[in-house]
Order: sequence, then structure tokens, then C-alpha cells
Amino acid sequence: MAIRTDQLLRSAWTADQVELPPHTLRWLRQETGLTDAWTPTKPLTAPPSELPDKAREVLTGIVGAEHVLTDEASRLGRTGGLSYLDLLAHKGVGEISVPDAVVLPADPSEVAAVVQACAELGLTIVPFGGGTSVVGGVQAANRAIVLDLARLDRLVLVDEVSRLAVFQAGVRAPDAEKALAEYGLTLGHVPQSFERATIGGFAATRSAGQASSGYGRFEDMVEGIRVATPRGELRFGVAPASAAGPDLRHLVIGSEGAFGVITEVTVRVRPLPKVRRYEGFVVDGWERGAEIVRRLAQDRVLADVTRLSDVDETRVSFALAGGLKAAGLRAYLRARGIRRPCMLIVGWEAQDQRELATRRAATISRLRGAVRLGRVLGEAWRHGRFNGPRQRDALMNVGVCVETLETATHWSQLDELYDKVRLALTDSLGRAIVMCHISHAYETGASLYFTVITPRSVDDPAGQWLRAKAAACEAISGLGTISHHHAVGVDHAPYLTAEIGDLGTEVLAAVKNTLDPAGILNPGKLIAP
Amino acid sequence: MAIRTDQLLRSAWTADQVELPPHTLRWLRQETGLTDAWTPTKPLTAPPSELPDKAREVLTGIVGAEHVLTDEASRLGRTGGLSYLDLLAHKGVGEISVPDAVVLPADPSEVAAVVQACAELGLTIVPFGGGTSVVGGVQAANRAIVLDLARLDRLVLVDEVSRLAVFQAGVRAPDAEKALAEYGLTLGHVPQSFERATIGGFAATRSAGQASSGYGRFEDMVEGIRVATPRGELRFGVAPASAAGPDLRHLVIGSEGAFGVITEVTVRVRPLPKVRRYEGFVVDGWERGAEIVRRLAQDRVLADVTRLSDVDETRVSFALAGGLKAAGLRAYLRARGIRRPCMLIVGWEAQDQRELATRRAATISRLRGAVRLGRVLGEAWRHGRFNGPRQRDALMNVGVCVETLETATHWSQLDELYDKVRLALTDSLGRAIVMCHISHAYETGASLYFTVITPRSVDDPAGQWLRAKAAACEAISGLGTISHHHAVGVDHAPYLTAEIGDLGTEVLAAVKNTLDPAGILNPGKLIAP
Repeated sequence: MAIRTDQLLRSAWTADQVELPPHTLRWLRQETGLTDAWTPTKPLTAPPSELPDKAREVLTGIVGAEHVLTDEASRLGRTGGLSYLDLLAHKGVGEISVPDAVVLPADPSEVAAVVQACAELGLTIVPFGGGTSVVGGVQAANRAIVLDLARLDRLVLVDEVSRLAVFQAGVRAPDAEKALAEYGLTLGHVPQSFERATIGGFAATRSAGQASSGYGRFEDMVEGIRVATPRGELRFGVAPASAAGPDLRHLVIGSEGAFGVITEVTVRVRPLPKVRRYEGFVVDGWERGAEIVRRLAQDRVLADVTRLSDVDETRVSFALAGGLKAAGLRAYLRARGIRRPCMLIVGWEAQDQRELATRRAATISRLRGAVRLGRVLGEAWRHGRFNGPRQRDALMNVGVCVETLETATHWSQLDELYDKVRLALTDSLGRAIVMCHISHAYETGASLYFTVITPRSVDDPAGQWLRAKAAACEAISGLGTISHHHAVGVDHAPYLTAEIGDLGTEVLAAVKNTLDPAGILNPGKLIAP
Repeated sequence: MAIRTDQLLRSAWTADQVELPPHTLRWLRQETGLTDAWTPTKPLTAPPSELPDKAREVLTGIVGAEHVLTDEASRLGRTGGLSYLDLLAHKGVGEISVPDAVVLPADPSEVAAVVQACAELGLTIVPFGGGTSVVGGVQAANRAIVLDLARLDRLVLVDEVSRLAVFQAGVRAPDAEKALAEYGLTLGHVPQSFERATIGGFAATRSAGQASSGYGRFEDMVEGIRVATPRGELRFGVAPASAAGPDLRHLVIGSEGAFGVITEVTVRVRPLPKVRRYEGFVVDGWERGAEIVRRLAQDRVLADVTRLSDVDETRVSFALAGGLKAAGLRAYLRARGIRRPCMLIVGWEAQDQRELATRRAATISRLRGAVRLGRVLGEAWRHGRFNGPRQRDALMNVGVCVETLETATHWSQLDELYDKVRLALTDSLGRAIVMCHISHAYETGASLYFTVITPRSVDDPAGQWLRAKAAACEAISGLGTISHHHAVGVDHAPYLTAEIGDLGTEVLAAVKNTLDPAGILNPGKLIAP
């Protein structure tokens, strides 16, 4: 099996980068006061690798010389993740550590050997899957090596009777789906990072996909898990459910490489859907929309994808789409009683038309007052669902500060959380577009996903976002979770303690000290230093 | 609020004890070779309390003298749980520790004070809810006090918008349902221990109820949790779901009082069902039945209650029910192609007849080959669903060794696990009736619940069961989980390490050492000494 190095580098992500159409740029300038003032400085370069000779020798002994990479492209390709600040750093703004080497073990036993060797050498490890973290989850510490799981790319086993599949951790989501499709199966996990992210990364970050209403969060799919730690291997999950003490799978899921390196995941799979239907609706106002989504969740008739945009996100979506005649649409909606249009995307996936029709009817009957915009809008959303990162790159290139953040809370606190985070962001950023959607709904609450667009500060581009993000995190603290599906990383580590308490943090530290006494695994992530 | 001491004692459980009808006794003698040889020896008595004066003084200072009980009845009423061996001990067979005192704090802050005081005093605590453990989960160590949560009996809050309710840990399940019913709500958690068990106990043991297919396992219902530890309070759960690191709720759920005392649980609630329908079917053979249940689970159309008995359990159920003319039924079934009758109970609960009919149709369409025995059988099961413990008492009184044990595994291993556990039990016990049912099904696997009936050994009644149980646990080890919903306690602690590994056990021990450095909390449970 050849390593497809080209797929591992950042360039793969931006291969089919989109350019902003002129009308969008005009609209942006008008809305946000954007000018062309900002130009990127020189792109990031890597300092010489300081991997000690002894370490290179040991690592080469385990994985072979061709899998210990110290060239600049390989190291830059695994420097940071995909947060706005990470991308700024790659454009020469701010500081970011470049790893000293990239090590590519072949299988779980080589991962275990690398982890143990690094513990003995005192060499810091950053586990690396798709590198799509937007919270500093793959930030290298000084003198760290990146443990890239790209070669752990096998579908190990399919148990069709139990509807289980065993994947090595480095399998990318599209490859996992391709392999499962040969068995007529699917995982159904489609976060926005789908194109690059890996099975191991999904588990490490407690990921949730856009179809979480139908397929569940990634943690709901994990039946078993293998983790290489400096103290040996952890293997959990012999049954779908158990009362054999605390469910230790949940201690490893979301552990972000700080307790060990996930090498293999056993996931629940389902039959590939044979029919799909995605539709767009518009409801009048965010509160009314949230109430509809709550009702769908509490009546347990959510579509597989259920996504409500607020007034601003709806307005921006329609404007950026460009093809829609915004004024005509507004008039059409107003004639149907919609004064504050909020877009609702619903998508069903089923085994046959009859099942789909039954489920669709259950959803639709609860959409009273909504105006149907039809399948064109639904399908447009579906086809563009992974475009967010590319759109962001295009926006960044024209001088926009663009970033997302997310949280979740109980239904009764959702409005308060929504208001407070919006206020914190607009207070901090001034003339900014702050948009929000609900994309994950539960019987007892929902997620809120914010996107911010504002002209990038010329003097202090990193500080501009750091201050806004801090204000948002303060607003979230105590009212919602610091992350619903982006994870903790470096960025949220200081806020995690507010959420789980000093004692909760001590518990995490005790687990880390037991498994990683030398503290070599992904330092600074999850637990603040 | 007065403590209803009468409700707290073991006698409450056996108040409406059933007597075995003569035909059942005849049948038992015929089937198992039971004789009347065994007669109980003298009932258990309590040695004098050795609670140190200093401890009594401190505890009295926190909860008041009337809530520090050292009388014999109170102490015997919290001695052990409800396992066969615990019940034998109460009949004078084998050893069991009687606690030195029973302490009844009024609320979470008094629990916290008692826990901290006991840590300072070096006094061992056994947290006690309904006392229904069948795995030695509330076994007192020598010189222990029982911390009885009976006075934490409040419904603290109902959030109707978010469909959440906050209960103090000592609320018994029937009282929780009564309180919720006033809001038109239900928890829907109905394990066989329902009549006595508490909200805190459900969380501490990672319980699963008979309607888990519809309402989920108890862990699926927990949104938030408060735990008093010697190091301070843990509070987890600010949102339905989160990616803020490992989900620490799952570290507390199933921790069996070894990490702290659960004082409050926030649970997801649902509207009270307005219509119910329970039906009985018979399918031909265990394998065919398990395949039907698997199909229902994997097509996600399980009824709220779905319960398949094997040939032996079906035969015994029909015989013990007595009212059914067994021979006539056999002929009726044979005429319909059923040679190895396996009973399948399915029950739906819904908001209206239409919803129920839709769901019922989805289930029924997958029951090809099953013979419908109708609502009488379904309702008979529903009405007798909590009678197991009383029937066991009656059986014990006539000299029967009767006990249950359970496990779960993936579908592809279910037959092997079933065969191995059966074989282990029959090999160990000789002439015994070994019955089994599936009562909890998932997309990827199911539980197996075994019941054993055999004449009690006259010479070594405890050893007889200990050997059989050990053989069954060995058979389970490596193939299934050591417990699907009974928990670990003292009985399964040695086998937990086989399931989670030495390193997994070390992780649990590290968490315990962090939260309970003096090791006063429920020693010997969960983690083997």
C-alpha cells in the first residue's frame, strides 16, 4: 500500500477552491464595509528539524526510514489544523509550532511501539488524522513529532450479522463509506470535515455529523475501541451495552489523543439508503422555527437531517447563493405571512419510498405555517454541504475574518444562550455578520452553531478574533457546553474546567497521569497546562 | 416529612408474598427432583453496633440523633441486597456483615457533610437506595455505616419545555412516576426492581428497564448528575450532548457508590402514554425468535417492550401460570407448525391509537411464522412483571435454589454465548432448569437473561450456587459483558478486570484514589480489593 502523500497535505483541501463571484464580493463590501486593505504576508516556513539522532534511529527502527519524514512540506502539511487562526498562521500571521518530524506507523502494533518509544525518549507526540481540528486539537508543542495515522487505512472486518465494522483509525470518512458501500452498508457520519476527517479523529473528538438526528452522534456508533497508551493497550466494548461499571468507551471517546492514540474503532453500520429526499422550507422567525424543531425532536419524528437557520444566516445564504432573486423571494414569502424568513432544511434517507413517505408525512404534519421551497433548495444544501471550508478560504483571501463556534444547551435556555453569544460577538467585533443555525436537536435540547463574517483587522488580525472568541466563550460558560461537536483542543481547555469543575479536571488529569505518566501525549489539549 | 421506616425494611418487599399453588409444587418436584429436605435454620441476628462514640457524635451533629439508627431492625433491614446468597444469609446460611449504623441525611448538603466526616473519621460508607442489588452491591464491609438516601425523596424541578426533571437520589421509581404523572409525564424506566429501587440506584448501577427498547437504558435518560465525594462535589451535564472532552457523566453512571454518593439526577422525561397494548406470540425455536428480534432491532421498529423466551422458559412460564392447558396449547401450536414454542412478548405505548397502530403494524409485519396468542398473554406478563422477586421468595421457602444472571454480546456471538452459559450452569448444577430470555435488543446485539431453578443443596447451599455462578462467569468472560444491567458489585468485581483489562482497572482505581483517597466509599464493589 502506497502512502498517497498528495492526499495528506493541506493542498488537497483547497484543490477545488472556490472563488467568490463578483456579486458576492459587492454584497460583502456593502454589508460589512469590507475593503481590500489586507494582504497576506509571507507564507509560513519551517525551521530546521531538531529531531535528535537517537530518536530518528529508534523511530526508523520501528516504522522504516521512509516513514520518518523531516522535509519541510511534510512538516508544514501537519502544522496546526483548520481554525481561522491556524490558517492565518500559514499566511504568516501569528506564531505556530512546526513539528520536528512526521512519523507514519503501519498498524496498531507499530503505533504502540512508537508511543512507548517516545515515552522513553521523552518525545512529545501529536496524533494526526485528517488534521481538520478547528480548536487547536493538533497544535504541535515545541519539539513534537506528529504521529500521522494515514497508513492505518484498512477496513479490518465486517460483521454483517451484527451490523458492525472494524476500521483502523486512519481511514478517511469517504474511504470508509466506499468500503462499506461494497457491502451495501453505510456509517452515515457526515460532519462538514467529511472529505478529510478520519474514523479515529471522529472518536477522539466526540464528533457529530450533519445527519446526527438520523444516524446518531459518532459516540452512538462506537461499539468498541482500541487505544495505544504509553502504559499498554486499552480495549473496550464487548457488547452494545453493559452495566459492568462506568462505560470506559466514553472516557476514550473525546480524549483528543491526550490519553492514548486510538488505533482501531468498531462501529455500528446500517444499510445504505436507497432513496433520499432533501427539502427546503421557510418558517417565520427563529423562535417559531426552534419550536418546530423542538416539537419534531420531542415527538421523535426528526428527519435524518434537520437544520434551522436564523434570519441572518438565511439572508446571507440566499444572498451568497446568488441565483435566487432575493427581492422576488421576499415578496413571495411576505405574501404567505413570512416576515422574518428562517430556512429549514430537512432530509430523509430510507430503504424505500414507502418508508420515506411515512417518515416525511410525520415531519411535514408538524411544519404548520412553514412555506415549502422545495427540493431544489434541499438538494442545493446537500450538494454544498462540505463546501464551508472552501468558502472560508475564498473569504479569507479577500480579507475577511471568518470563523465558526458552537455550543448546546437545554431547550429552555436556548434563547438566552443564543442572545448572549450573539451579543458577545457583535459587541466585540463591531460591524459583523453573526449568523446561527440549529443542526443537532435532541429531546431535551439543541446545538447552536455560529458563523461570523467581518472585515479582518489590519493591525491585529489574530487579536481581533481571539477577543471575540473569548467573549463568546464567557457568554457560553455556565449556560451551555463549551463545545457541542468541535471538541476542546487548546482553544477550549481553559473553559473546560468551568464546565466540569476543578474536581472534574483533576479526574481527567488522574486518568492522564495513569496512562501517560511522562505527559508526552498531545500536551495542552483537553487539560489546560 | 416523616421517614416511612416500614417502607425501608425488607419486610415491605415480601408483604404480598405469593405462595406456590399445589400444582406448581407438584410440577417442580417432578421436573427437578425437589424434596422437602431443606429447612431454614435460625434467621440472621445483628451483633451489637460498634459505632464509635466519636462517630455517633459527629454524625448526630450533621443529621440529628433520630437519623442515626443503631437498632437491630434498621441495621438488618440494610444488610446486603436481594441476591440468592443475601437471602440465604438472612435465613442463617453463610456469612454476611451487618452495618454498625444507618445514617439518613436530609439532602445533598447533608450527604456531602456525612461523606466528608466519614473520610476524616476513616469510617466506611455503603450508599443505600432501594437495596435491590443482586450482585453484592450494598454488601457492608466490617465496621461500615449504611448511608440511606431515603430522605432525599424530592422532585426538585420539572422543566416542561426541555422535558427534564430533577430528582433527589432517594426517590423510589413508583414515587417518581406518581410525581411526574401530575405533569402528564413519565420516565418509563421499569426494571424488575421497580417497586423498591431508586433514581440514584438506577444511575449508580447503569440500570436498564424492561421497556429499554422504547425508553432507552437509564444512562440514555441522564442529562445531569450531582455526586458528593470526599474531595467535594461533582456536577456534570449542561447540555444533552457535548464534545467537551470525555463524557464524565458516564464515569459516574455505573460507579456503584465507589467514587461518590449520587445525590441528584436530572432525567429526560416523556409524555405519559395514553394507550398501551401488550401481546403474546409464539415462534418456532430460539434461533428463529432471536432472528426476528434482531430484524426488529436492525430495522428500528422494536416495540417498547420486546421479550423473547427460550423453549425452557416458555415451557416453565406456561406450566407455572397453571391456567393454561399445556397439552391443548401444545397441540394448537403444533397444528400451526410450532414444534419448539418460544414466547415473544411485545408491548407498545403511544400517545394515540393511530400512532400505536402504525408502530404495531411495523412490528407485526416482521413476525412471519409467529402464532398470535393475543392480549391476554401480553397483559398477564405486564401485570406480573414485578413479581419475580416474590416468586423467588416462595420458591426459596420450599427448598429451591433460584437465581438469575445476565450478559450481552453482539448478534453474531449470541448463540455461542447462549450455549456456553447454559452448558456451564447445567454442568455445574446437574438436574436443573436453566431458562433464558432476550429482553434488551440493540442494532448490534442483545442481552441474555438466565434463570436457574434447582433443588437446594442440603450440605452446601451457598457453595452450590457459588460454583455454578463462577462457571457461568467464566463462560461469559471474553465472549460477552459480565453484566448487562445487574452491575458489578462484589460478585462480578473479579471478572471486570478480564473485561476492561488490568490497565482499565488501573484507570478506575486512579479515579477512585482521586475522589476517595481514604477508600471509605463502598469498598470491594466495582474494583476487586
